[in-house]
Amino acid sequence: MELKQYLQERAVIVDQALREIMPAQDLYPPKIHEAMHYSVFAGGKRLRPILCLAAAEALGRDYQPLLPVACALEMIHTYSLIHDDLPVMDDDDYRRGKLTNHKVFGEGIAVLTGDALLTYAFEILARYGEKHQEKKAVWQVLQEIATAAGTAGMIGGQVVDLESEGRNLVDKELLVYIHTHKTGALFRASLRAGALLAGASAEELACLTLYAEKFGLAFQITDDLLDLVGNQKKLGKPVGSDTKNKKLTYPTLYGLAEAKRFVREAIEEAARSLTKLPGKTEPLELLLRYLPEREF
Amino acid sequence: MELKQYLQERAVIVDQALREIMPAQDLYPPKIHEAMHYSVFAGGKRLRPILCLAAAEALGRDYQPLLPVACALEMIHTYSLIHDDLPVMDDDDYRRGKLTNHKVFGEGIAVLTGDALLTYAFEILARYGEKHQEKKAVWQVLQEIATAAGTAGMIGGQVVDLESEGRNLVDKELLVYIHTHKTGALFRASLRAGALLAGASAEELACLTLYAEKFGLAFQITDDLLDLVGNQKKLGKPVGSDTKNKKLTYPTLYGLAEAKRFVREAIEEAARSLTKLPGKTEPLELLLRYLPEREF
Repeated sequence: MELKQYLQERAVIVDQALREIMPAQDLYPPKIHEAMHYSVFAGGKRLRPILCLAAAEALGRDYQPLLPVACALEMIHTYSLIHDDLPVMDDDDYRRGKLTNHKVFGEGIAVLTGDALLTYAFEILARYGEKHQEKKAVWQVLQEIATAAGTAGMIGGQVVDLESEGRNLVDKELLVYIHTHKTGALFRASLRAGALLAGASAEELACLTLYAEKFGLAFQITDDLLDLVGNQKKLGKPVGSDTKNKKLTYPTLYGLAEAKRFVREAIEEAARSLTKLPGKTEPLELLLRYLPEREF
Repeated sequence: MELKQYLQERAVIVDQALREIMPAQDLYPPKIHEAMHYSVFAGGKRLRPILCLAAAEALGRDYQPLLPVACALEMIHTYSLIHDDLPVMDDDDYRRGKLTNHKVFGEGIAVLTGDALLTYAFEILARYGEKHQEKKAVWQVLQEIATAAGTAGMIGGQVVDLESEGRNLVDKELLVYIHTHKTGALFRASLRAGALLAGASAEELACLTLYAEKFGLAFQITDDLLDLVGNQKKLGKPVGSDTKNKKLTYPTLYGLAEAKRFVREAIEEAARSLTKLPGKTEPLELLLRYLPEREF
């Protein structure tokens, strides 16, 4: 299986499911539904849904029935991006080369678009739960997703990130807190949701949780590394000049070589934990290879 | 039973449940939990939780087991107020005589506080659902609450309200849309949640739904009337001078006498629908009397 092709095929499947499950764009009031579509279909890689589906496959199950849950995860991710991009938060005008939601629809609608996607994610999960209520795990999945999205997860990470901004903090614990919460928690919930709904045993669940945590760590560090390399290419400044920068990142805190070593180790550990799983683990292995190759 | 005493007693019960169920104020990161507490305990009347509990009593059931659901409804209501008060929405500095969340904690934290309360509401509902999974209705309740909070409910109402603002719209259908969605939908979901979880029959559910819809209508019109009377007292302008005002309200659209008649009729219809219920309907009757007496 080829990585790029695999990711594209899966993104098409998730996109198709999203198009089917999202409220129609012209539904009244059209502005909010148009704004929801704008951000959901703004070119995301669909990494969280793909991880969720791949977790089920790693346990020998079909990914198909999990598509609604995968869509809900993508909506929660998209809501968090819309709110994080607001001028009162990170104040970003562009994301993936497109204007951010508030630049197109205004800040009031952008707040409501985020709210709507978060709410709609739970509506979808509730519908899925009603349909699959024989699965005891659905309630746990719902709780884990809510916890990962809440102040013990994504929101907690964003709060600490907001507070640390521009304060020149060089605190390793804080860096780990922000990343495990702001991005790590939803990766973890995505894989655990797939695993739990596929009927994972306690040991299988532990393996996929470890994979998720290592994946999240490697994702964050490669993100930092790409930022650094991107800056270097763009600004022509030498690698490492960011160490005195205000931004708290792995390479600025630990140095480039050490940060790269962390990525390699995390990927190795994640790959090792897949060996105990009974199903098709190739997709999850491919996703590990995606991490250091993310430039494409 | 005396109205004022009843409302106070119930508010104390709901407050106590909220204190038990909310994440501790000093939980890390403290700022977001402090901000959540600030708005949840800012002096709300707890009308939606009280209606939810009273629906169960009207069917002869104990309200106690419903307290977590009642708390979730109050959190959703509080989240909507925090986001509606933001400068990019209705831009209010005060609510119930206290500074609004963003005036105290900043706009970024206020957005996140709303997000956190919405998310936490679903976490509580998921925990409740797991504990009471023998009840088939819990999934329906979860869906109805999500729908009422989403673009087919509260968010839809707020979007249309935002869009109509300052546009001098005098459109009766629009007025009804805004109010049935912005405030009506959550009243309806609150009563139906109580009814469904108390095991209502189809006929009982229909009675309580009718009650909810009439309650919501009367609530909105009395709100408009109080606004008008309040303005009259405060600004010394004659009643009816608001008819040429931009604000879309029942008294400005229909006149004072007609608006008052709507309230009386709605209350009568709501009261009538209670006569078919087998339990203690006195609380729901008291709540109807609350509507025209809301000044205290």
